Amino acid sequence: MACTGGRELHVGMVQVARAAIAGMAVKTPLIASRCLEGTTKQPVFLKLETLQPIGAFKLRGAANALSLLGGDERARGVVCCSTGNHGRAVAFAARRLGMRATVCLSHLVPEVKISAIEALGGTVRRVGQSQDEAQVEADRMVREEGLTDIPPFDHPHVIAGQGTIALEILEDRPDIETILVPLSGGGLIGGIALAAKALKPSIRIIGISMKRGAAMQASLMTGRPVEVEELPTLADSLGGGIGLRNRWTFDLCRNLVDDVVLLDESEIYRGMRVLLLEERLVAEGAAAVGHAALLAGKVKLDGPAAIIVSGQNAPMEQVLAIGRGEPVTLGGLEVKG
Amino acid sequence: MACTGGRELHVGMVQVARAAIAGMAVKTPLIASRCLEGTTKQPVFLKLETLQPIGAFKLRGAANALSLLGGDERARGVVCCSTGNHGRAVAFAARRLGMRATVCLSHLVPEVKISAIEALGGTVRRVGQSQDEAQVEADRMVREEGLTDIPPFDHPHVIAGQGTIALEILEDRPDIETILVPLSGGGLIGGIALAAKALKPSIRIIGISMKRGAAMQASLMTGRPVEVEELPTLADSLGGGIGLRNRWTFDLCRNLVDDVVLLDESEIYRGMRVLLLEERLVAEGAAAVGHAALLAGKVKLDGPAAIIVSGQNAPMEQVLAIGRGEPVTLGGLEVKG
Repeated sequence: MACTGGRELHVGMVQVARAAIAGMAVKTPLIASRCLEGTTKQPVFLKLETLQPIGAFKLRGAANALSLLGGDERARGVVCCSTGNHGRAVAFAARRLGMRATVCLSHLVPEVKISAIEALGGTVRRVGQSQDEAQVEADRMVREEGLTDIPPFDHPHVIAGQGTIALEILEDRPDIETILVPLSGGGLIGGIALAAKALKPSIRIIGISMKRGAAMQASLMTGRPVEVEELPTLADSLGGGIGLRNRWTFDLCRNLVDDVVLLDESEIYRGMRVLLLEERLVAEGAAAVGHAALLAGKVKLDGPAAIIVSGQNAPMEQVLAIGRGEPVTLGGLEVKG
Repeated sequence: MACTGGRELHVGMVQVARAAIAGMAVKTPLIASRCLEGTTKQPVFLKLETLQPIGAFKLRGAANALSLLGGDERARGVVCCSTGNHGRAVAFAARRLGMRATVCLSHLVPEVKISAIEALGGTVRRVGQSQDEAQVEADRMVREEGLTDIPPFDHPHVIAGQGTIALEILEDRPDIETILVPLSGGGLIGGIALAAKALKPSIRIIGISMKRGAAMQASLMTGRPVEVEELPTLADSLGGGIGLRNRWTFDLCRNLVDDVVLLDESEIYRGMRVLLLEERLVAEGAAAVGHAALLAGKVKLDGPAAIIVSGQNAPMEQVLAIGRGEPVTLGGLEVKG
């Protein structure tokens, strides 16, 4: 246990990150939801991280971390361990910066994400049944081959990169009072909470996870990082542990996240369905948790809110089935809306 | 015949329009296509007018036209005749400006578009089997009730509003050499051509229509505005005549559009399918014609290009069927990819 981080991170690093990533990640639009105001009675805005070149927010953190590497590190290349979007992000940013990238993945990650990483020029190595097992291989490559590990969330430069989302949101709409954030390892919500609360201390940051494998929430309830069983879920981008030797994101979440909400798979299904049919956005399950939480009445709003629509990289057959209202099967579990 | 317009329109009106519409329409993102470069061997960017608050570019022209009305006109209200998106645009802008809006539509317009207009506070009046018949009713309301008609395309303030798209494109990517534009009545392409060629005379403007009812192309070939039969098409937003007494857009197209390309329904189907599955964008048929033309090899590029992804307001059952590769039936015609 080494949960001593968090305090060294500050909003200045996020502001610097914004300049560092400008050529790789884009400033995404913040648009009004077409359908949620009837439920929430408050204006709700959608931060469309689906429009990043890799289809997910993860590019921000990876681009920042890679841009801060020294010449020797760049020459030897980078390795990462990821459920998919972080791998795409590292592959994309590495190619832009002229570096070699290897991505270690568990066998639970959908095929569509593997080919996407390879198309971006990344080398994929598949290992084990969980992110933790894939991480063991990444650690070996760091030790034996001298590669630099780019962690998916528990790294100050990654966290600072993700935090740039908060700067953009409050620049576009300073009146936002609540931000709903998909919660997995805590890099996204940690960066957003850090930056948003520095600029606007009264803002509420709500983390949202699926019940099936909510590692950060289990850790917060226990008071230290704990492991949870990784299970198939519509929000597969949110799967994986937070690391028993978590250094940064556990403390950030403990200190800065106001509330955590957990969702059933059927609630996530309904979130994806409304996103497609009403908002007309293709989104992965992890990106639908904000809609799901509001539609399920699990988050109440007192003022304008923003939802991070974090990525679009779901298998399209899943998206089309949900659009048609058909059941979806996840490792033996049948999910309906 | 009164095709004497065009010359009085100038790019200054487009620049003024940009300020006038700023509170109603948004600056939309221009993102890299995820899939077209393999076909075109040139960078292709997508102008996402799907992200306008009404889900289509038409808001720009309507917002500009309404914002330029005087106090008496505002008090009496406005009427328009539209295949749907223009009606939504007028209803949305009118509500924002505190005016009453009536929308006259033909019976060919899909139900989904009717309810969308009503949800925005517009009053819908359904008349006849074509835009021309609906226009007769709009003309009556102007004569007998003193309403101001906001034409869907053949009006200088509407054209200037649509032209703001070109200012944004060239601001974001001055290197764009070709713009592919859905072509219907010519308001969109007229405004874009006017503004883009004023800023960058070498730019190529390509209009794209469906073969089933390409009124502007038939008029250009004839040398004067002519009527064509209105037929069911996947690109239903592009249906309707250009008006036998066209004043502005026919001349603009004749003088400023470099080429016009016509598409089969199966080509439009494939454009919509690629937009959904590869770009992960929900788009109506009219918005898919740029993809369709490039995928069919009907437009060749020598440098970076931009496609206007003009709107997203297709019936979702049609979008889902196309995503699954299922045939779609349009008034007795079966369309497949």
